[in-house]
Amino acid sequence: MIKAGIIGSTGYVGEELIRILLRHPQVEIIKMTSKSFSGKVYSDVYQSYLGLCEIECTDEEVEQVAIEVDVIFMALPHGIASKNLNDAVLAQTKVIDLGADFRLTNKEVYEDWYSTEHHNAELLKNAVYGLCEWNREEIRKTSLVANPGCYPTCSILSLAPLLKEGILEKDSIIIDAKSGISGAGRSLNLGTHFAECNESIKAYKVATHRHIPEIEQQLEEISGGTINISFTPHLVPMNRGILITTYGRLTEIVSYEEISTIYNKYYGEEFFIRLMNKDIYPETRWVKGSNYCDIGFVIDERTNRVIIVGAIDNLVKGAAGQAVQNMNIMFGLDERMGLTGIPLVR
Amino acid sequence: MIKAGIIGSTGYVGEELIRILLRHPQVEIIKMTSKSFSGKVYSDVYQSYLGLCEIECTDEEVEQVAIEVDVIFMALPHGIASKNLNDAVLAQTKVIDLGADFRLTNKEVYEDWYSTEHHNAELLKNAVYGLCEWNREEIRKTSLVANPGCYPTCSILSLAPLLKEGILEKDSIIIDAKSGISGAGRSLNLGTHFAECNESIKAYKVATHRHIPEIEQQLEEISGGTINISFTPHLVPMNRGILITTYGRLTEIVSYEEISTIYNKYYGEEFFIRLMNKDIYPETRWVKGSNYCDIGFVIDERTNRVIIVGAIDNLVKGAAGQAVQNMNIMFGLDERMGLTGIPLVR
Amino acid sequence: MIKAGIIGSTGYVGEELIRILLRHPQVEIIKMTSKSFSGKVYSDVYQSYLGLCEIECTDEEVEQVAIEVDVIFMALPHGIASKNLNDAVLAQTKVIDLGADFRLTNKEVYEDWYSTEHHNAELLKNAVYGLCEWNREEIRKTSLVANPGCYPTCSILSLAPLLKEGILEKDSIIIDAKSGISGAGRSLNLGTHFAECNESIKAYKVATHRHIPEIEQQLEEISGGTINISFTPHLVPMNRGILITTYGRLTEIVSYEEISTIYNKYYGEEFFIRLMNKDIYPETRWVKGSNYCDIGFVIDERTNRVIIVGAIDNLVKGAAGQAVQNMNIMFGLDERMGLTGIPLVR
Amino acid sequence: MIKAGIIGSTGYVGEELIRILLRHPQVEIIKMTSKSFSGKVYSDVYQSYLGLCEIECTDEEVEQVAIEVDVIFMALPHGIASKNLNDAVLAQTKVIDLGADFRLTNKEVYEDWYSTEHHNAELLKNAVYGLCEWNREEIRKTSLVANPGCYPTCSILSLAPLLKEGILEKDSIIIDAKSGISGAGRSLNLGTHFAECNESIKAYKVATHRHIPEIEQQLEEISGGTINISFTPHLVPMNRGILITTYGRLTEIVSYEEISTIYNKYYGEEFFIRLMNKDIYPETRWVKGSNYCDIGFVIDERTNRVIIVGAIDNLVKGAAGQAVQNMNIMFGLDERMGLTGIPLVR
Repeated sequence: MIKAGIIGSTGYVGEELIRILLRHPQVEIIKMTSKSFSGKVYSDVYQSYLGLCEIECTDEEVEQVAIEVDVIFMALPHGIASKNLNDAVLAQTKVIDLGADFRLTNKEVYEDWYSTEHHNAELLKNAVYGLCEWNREEIRKTSLVANPGCYPTCSILSLAPLLKEGILEKDSIIIDAKSGISGAGRSLNLGTHFAECNESIKAYKVATHRHIPEIEQQLEEISGGTINISFTPHLVPMNRGILITTYGRLTEIVSYEEISTIYNKYYGEEFFIRLMNKDIYPETRWVKGSNYCDIGFVIDERTNRVIIVGAIDNLVKGAAGQAVQNMNIMFGLDERMGLTGIPLVR
Repeated sequence: MIKAGIIGSTGYVGEELIRILLRHPQVEIIKMTSKSFSGKVYSDVYQSYLGLCEIECTDEEVEQVAIEVDVIFMALPHGIASKNLNDAVLAQTKVIDLGADFRLTNKEVYEDWYSTEHHNAELLKNAVYGLCEWNREEIRKTSLVANPGCYPTCSILSLAPLLKEGILEKDSIIIDAKSGISGAGRSLNLGTHFAECNESIKAYKVATHRHIPEIEQQLEEISGGTINISFTPHLVPMNRGILITTYGRLTEIVSYEEISTIYNKYYGEEFFIRLMNKDIYPETRWVKGSNYCDIGFVIDERTNRVIIVGAIDNLVKGAAGQAVQNMNIMFGLDERMGLTGIPLVR
Repeated sequence: MIKAGIIGSTGYVGEELIRILLRHPQVEIIKMTSKSFSGKVYSDVYQSYLGLCEIECTDEEVEQVAIEVDVIFMALPHGIASKNLNDAVLAQTKVIDLGADFRLTNKEVYEDWYSTEHHNAELLKNAVYGLCEWNREEIRKTSLVANPGCYPTCSILSLAPLLKEGILEKDSIIIDAKSGISGAGRSLNLGTHFAECNESIKAYKVATHRHIPEIEQQLEEISGGTINISFTPHLVPMNRGILITTYGRLTEIVSYEEISTIYNKYYGEEFFIRLMNKDIYPETRWVKGSNYCDIGFVIDERTNRVIIVGAIDNLVKGAAGQAVQNMNIMFGLDERMGLTGIPLVR
Repeated sequence: MIKAGIIGSTGYVGEELIRILLRHPQVEIIKMTSKSFSGKVYSDVYQSYLGLCEIECTDEEVEQVAIEVDVIFMALPHGIASKNLNDAVLAQTKVIDLGADFRLTNKEVYEDWYSTEHHNAELLKNAVYGLCEWNREEIRKTSLVANPGCYPTCSILSLAPLLKEGILEKDSIIIDAKSGISGAGRSLNLGTHFAECNESIKAYKVATHRHIPEIEQQLEEISGGTINISFTPHLVPMNRGILITTYGRLTEIVSYEEISTIYNKYYGEEFFIRLMNKDIYPETRWVKGSNYCDIGFVIDERTNRVIIVGAIDNLVKGAAGQAVQNMNIMFGLDERMGLTGIPLVR
């Protein structure tokens, strides 16, 4: 059994990790930390775990936890993981960081977009960007995975095959993203107070969201060229789910079948990526509670663009599920282990 | 492996059965029928099953299906099961009927409340009311289970211990029930059209709902006396969940601890019933997607009433989950098999 | 023109007052105060008012505001109005307090239920309980109205005629209440964080809610006897609306028509109370955004109870709308003035 | 008083017309027709109108209604208005058609996108596209207004000033649209059944929606050149509201202030168009229930695009409200009459 520790266990991503790991046949949760609920039994924080998880939350530091576990999941806001991780910790345990600290390979880009100092630039080169379907081999070998952001996961999975094959104009990419409100986390905020966001949709951080450099970095790496995207995230009055609508100009006239062939080339064998049939588009409910990423597309012949629609559950494939998928890869397990739950459509 | 057939597989209860049974380690789904989607592959009806369930829906009759399977789940409106079941079918397969036809032991009561003729009164005596926690032994022996209604499941589980112990005045019971909208099924109806029920709550079938005789019959059997309840169901703008708020006058002055002891006497060992700590009340989210029934209560000293709050997922413990629990009992399996998923809180 | 000041203008009740008063033909808003948003223009707090209300919020005290206005609306948590009001203020301006400080006539009852000291017991005798349909004459004469709570408004309007006519057993009253989430106000709280209350229903403060003594006091005054109710409020995942389901045992056998006659006797001429036709029950959407209170009922013959369903918009008839109705009465205006907007059903 | 008739009064757009017209100081509703509810009093169809609108729905034809009224609002699916309107009708009454039949000036384009024959091509030249802020003068003179579609209203208002000033590349326009579910109307449909669309977002009719030629036609007329847009509508789980996120490449480098100046040039005096302050983006709640169109934008310097966010209430500015605004113009009334209600934010 793999001994796991979760740093930041009572946020939404932490809770999702526990939901998955408690039913993972090869994992035992040894530690769960929480600054806010230290000393509380988990089922007192979330009544849903009554009888299912009576572990007490502690406020131990990463270094302490590292001694006792084989893998640490860090589900914290950016800026904390980089302070707490070091070679000593990584010598003792594998780490999957669900925050942003190790996603950007360039320290300056990080500091620029996150308006903060990076405390651990030397570790950046150790970190592997944990987009499983694209970086599987590197993930297998590393002890530090930077788990991708929710929007980047769905955006990159949607775009990467077409960019890699060179059929999209690189300066034409527009990503219009829609997220359920759990994406904003559990911290109290007027914008996510029920009567302030229910029955309304809004755009936020238009053209300035911190996931922009993350998406661009990965797409550039995959396609080998400079990519500047326009990216607009929106908040949708629902608990879960991300839908990404992506627009790109085709470099030449291609058929539906040709693009379909490209997607199949990269994803045909991928368990967690499902390619929709023609004229079917993903809906977030079809992936709710699951680790799937659904992708559909259409060629807009009048404008010679391809419009791709991707859907994930922001808390699963967009966070905790992908983290467990990464763990499975890192430990040489079947990648699907613990992640085969069927979507809870409604 | 138990071979299972599902009659009426594309309604909400049917879909929930398939979600559970596909991950049940001892079950193989052999047949799924659907009048409306006959000939369609299941993942064309629900895209969530893409790659997970590519079985084709047929419109075979119960008699045909019975030949090939060990257990039949009937997820149909009332009036159909009683027409299709007979001794020949029951000689070939076990049947769990999720409709109302075999829940009421008295044919006249059925015909009165359902305004229809009962086609199969002689089978009524074979049927066992499948409220697992109370009728486990009979369920084990029968080949025909009448799976309880959603409101009755939560209502009876909430009230039975106190009535059995005789501490409630039998003519004082009031059940105020709230249900998510999936309880109304998948058939199109103005009342469940999104813009007609979203952002609103309403009572319906006040004092006339067909679950009333079902609840009364079971409570009378358990407590041994005549019981007439007032019952008001309400529709709440959410997908899933039933919350039952029950009021009963205490026959004598009892303490919180005494009532707590009673609940523990009946449910202390029950895996699927969770008794809340003092001052904690169930919320439907704590059981979402799971087979749990959560129960909390308070003594309203000023009025000498006990107020009990119970919560279930209407599609799981209130339908498909309890049906699988019944199947597990009928086949001598661990009652929890296939049903240990953790609630999907949000 | 009546000059109005609003103390606590940026909470949900304050905002609703401004929405109504801005379109009231006889009112001019002179002052709006806000501790949190002092110095901000109103349309910066609520973008909906862009171009409609560019008044700056101040943090002036009640005494200062009183000098400049004819009427003050106090939309503050309990405990503040009683500290700020005094004879000097009431000599200068009429006051409608939307908080709880002047609703209970008995200081001890207030202090007991609200766990706080009452700072102004001598003013209690001046205050008139502003349930317009029942206390119109006293309201006309007073300068201090205690605007009823949201649950009490709907509960008392539902029950009062039947209790006054003596056809309900006084110890049999059970009120099961359901409220939209705006009822919890704008202050941040985990319980009203979107992903914590969306898609779920829960009971809270069961048998202990502070509106209990308020309801009992009024019902006792109207019916002339001791009344102890059981009261359970629930939070429903919608922005607005209160639905009250009330159960009472009939003292004798009465017909639907007899009860209908009673309701008509008291409410037949009331503009803001709408009696539903037989077999029609109120839904909160039918009153959304309006000052109506809809009432329907059924006789549960099997139990000899009457079940009454009442619906209001918690922010309008349950708060700001009724406050304006009170103002209209106090100033001798047509009671309906500014309140004839049609419900915004969806 | 203007005598008004509403053809198709019980759909969502019809209901919204009645909500507005009942409070319009210069209008009297004389006729309301409904095929489905003919013979029913309006408050039996919508209980919200109890005591407010007791007019009986008839199934009279347009020709009959035309005799008795000064203005007819047609709130019907496409294909019906063109069959029922003719010179005789237009000689008797003004007509505002809220369907699609008279929006496209080119018969072939209509027949192509709507896959149906146009029955009344000769009337096309009489019709004026009723986008008030751009076609006010023509509207004033016509007796037949084609009321714009919901998506086109918000899209065109967002884009027109910038296209007219020539600062957008004409082949670069992408419109990503999000609509509340009332936009799909009141007809029953699996896609708008509560438990099928709640808690989920989806794209639909990607690159094939019938509002595409309508938007292009108007933008071409305003900008004087060929425009092909990519347009993706999405369904959002909320009752009302449209949010339009528009992307366009700038022909040159311009500043925020320059674009702001352009918007002010066209909309600075427009009552119903509200330009947001810098860094503020519209949210649909800010316009709910009102006739406002809110517009905000940002320059995405990294890609030299402008991203414009527009919001309207699909049933008001996107349908009934704009229709009444058109009526006001046609009858020489103050354009704002009956339309000054304040948004019902929650």
